[in-house]
Amino acid sequence: MPLENDTLLRALRREPVDHGPVWLMRQAGRYLPEYAALRARAGSFMALATTPSLATEVTLQPLARFPLDAAILFSDILTIPDAMGLGLSFAEGEGPRFARAVADEASVGALEAPDLARLSYVFDAVGQIKRALAGRVPLIGFAGSPFTLACYMIEGGASDDFATVRKMAFARPDLIDRIVAVNADAVAGYLVEQLRAGADALMLFDTWGGLLSEAAYQRFSLEPMRSVLRRLPAGVPTILFTKGRAGSLASIAESGASCMGLDWTADLGDARRRHGARIAIQGNLDPLALLTDPRSVEAAVVDLLRAAGPEPGYVFNLGHGIVPATPPENVAALVAAVHAISRSATSGAAARAIVPGESAGSRAGPRVHGA
Amino acid sequence: MPLENDTLLRALRREPVDHGPVWLMRQAGRYLPEYAALRARAGSFMALATTPSLATEVTLQPLARFPLDAAILFSDILTIPDAMGLGLSFAEGEGPRFARAVADEASVGALEAPDLARLSYVFDAVGQIKRALAGRVPLIGFAGSPFTLACYMIEGGASDDFATVRKMAFARPDLIDRIVAVNADAVAGYLVEQLRAGADALMLFDTWGGLLSEAAYQRFSLEPMRSVLRRLPAGVPTILFTKGRAGSLASIAESGASCMGLDWTADLGDARRRHGARIAIQGNLDPLALLTDPRSVEAAVVDLLRAAGPEPGYVFNLGHGIVPATPPENVAALVAAVHAISRSATSGAAARAIVPGESAGSRAGPRVHGA
Repeated sequence: MPLENDTLLRALRREPVDHGPVWLMRQAGRYLPEYAALRARAGSFMALATTPSLATEVTLQPLARFPLDAAILFSDILTIPDAMGLGLSFAEGEGPRFARAVADEASVGALEAPDLARLSYVFDAVGQIKRALAGRVPLIGFAGSPFTLACYMIEGGASDDFATVRKMAFARPDLIDRIVAVNADAVAGYLVEQLRAGADALMLFDTWGGLLSEAAYQRFSLEPMRSVLRRLPAGVPTILFTKGRAGSLASIAESGASCMGLDWTADLGDARRRHGARIAIQGNLDPLALLTDPRSVEAAVVDLLRAAGPEPGYVFNLGHGIVPATPPENVAALVAAVHAISRSATSGAAARAIVPGESAGSRAGPRVHGA
Repeated sequence: MPLENDTLLRALRREPVDHGPVWLMRQAGRYLPEYAALRARAGSFMALATTPSLATEVTLQPLARFPLDAAILFSDILTIPDAMGLGLSFAEGEGPRFARAVADEASVGALEAPDLARLSYVFDAVGQIKRALAGRVPLIGFAGSPFTLACYMIEGGASDDFATVRKMAFARPDLIDRIVAVNADAVAGYLVEQLRAGADALMLFDTWGGLLSEAAYQRFSLEPMRSVLRRLPAGVPTILFTKGRAGSLASIAESGASCMGLDWTADLGDARRRHGARIAIQGNLDPLALLTDPRSVEAAVVDLLRAAGPEPGYVFNLGHGIVPATPPENVAALVAAVHAISRSATSGAAARAIVPGESAGSRAGPRVHGA
């Protein structure tokens, strides 16, 4: 089925678009009252993620409110280690825990990529979401990066500082090598199946690559992601996002991904100038900007669109996931501002012409939220 | 009094040295049993910091154990907002708190740089430490950066995400401008007094500049630090350390500081190649490497010294402060390795010649801890 709105895919291929595509990491989530209601009915986060009909409903919730240019599969990056038999659970307010950590010679040696049949609920969800979308916008499938999965597996769950992982990077790098190699096999197979089930683009979330030294990032995180990307069918649009590596963009730009996601600390304008001819770029508003007010959000959008410039290959997004306290009206203001400003820009007037004299960080922005 | 060991100052000026200087952020601190004992006797952290004789004793403790190339004043970055009357306290295990936050128009408008007489205990400590050091090694004075102080002042203490600060950067940037301007006045005066009292070099700790977008970092953090540096006497060696800004090194290199400190995620070799002709560089071992074992620590030192290269202008340090769980014997191994390897390198053999075939992250390193 051809897509009604393929703006995201065009931007990922660095083709011209009539408006700038926008989607938001964690766009389906706790800031939406309808999500909270459905989660309460389902009983748990994992019930939502493992029941295709519920995952479908959650995935579509933000699209009913906002004219976003993409849907993203509602799931969790830890489905893979869960399918490896590590015993995933989510304690309320505590983040993910595994019954078994993978942090010694024996557990690392025993590690194997999971039978993908154990993840069929994910592929079923992808298929159902595609049917429900009926071609409105593309669907992004995703996985955690091999290293980010390894972080949770080694630590046995979430952590403030991932001390076990960081120590292991010095004392037993060979163990991390083995874990990320197994994870790369698993992630590659998992993404290929999401693609078969109907995903239009694929994203790797490398939430914790920023914990590492540059040499360790290259070895434990970026190279395994490259390995995953090499195993995907040619031509599939891919997005690689590492948080906390604004200093590593040159090597990420050479990773083989179609697009690199920037966290909010990276210099979007500089990244576009240096790397925009080789790779599309996505990002990078501080998610906490969405805790302010529509006017401040619009001013921030103006600044970012100016930094991104008019050349093809830019996808508006946050620099990390939406936080639960976000007022939905600020998300509405953001999406409207991206569309209005980028439409003006692509219809002839450059973004900077809309707001002459506007300076970075100024509160004076265009009024696009119906005022 | 001339210094017996001026290696640090020579490195900060990018002059040749006969061995690589090494000191460690938080080298005086909780990982040392003698520190814990003294703190228990003093009753609190602030009692140590505000009593010059105790601050002197703590400052010298690590130098009695390890042949470090510098002492650093034992104090806290929050002495300045405390002297502004914000009511600093440290709850056990909770980090700093202020009785009054500075987060609205009225409190920001009322903010003034403190009377430096309220900080005389710091300058007295500097004088006492200098006398106690008797010229063995240089003494580094320091202050928190104007923005990092603002983070604690706005938030009213420590925070996981500094959400109030990050929101304010979008909604009320004018308020942050005012706070950091006042802080820059205070920090400049404070550092000048430390210099008068005997400090040989000065460091700005910008712990939280990494919270910000690039544009906001330039405006709220780097420019106020530049302003502080401009107000110091010409020729004083200065170190500027921002955590979490590996993507901003080019502009930090132009800040006017003698040296930039790198956190452990920055690419030391790349930074030395790009910026080493203009600015000395300090860093950047992951502090958690010190939680492993002497052999792993030495291998990490080998990798870092190779990345730093033999050119003048490099100071070995961690990429952030020593953590309390650090075994002192690993610190001993680190200091010995830096000295042994850098002495061999500067005496003719390049560092890489010591460990032929050594690859980054390999555990096979030279045995320099008495084996």
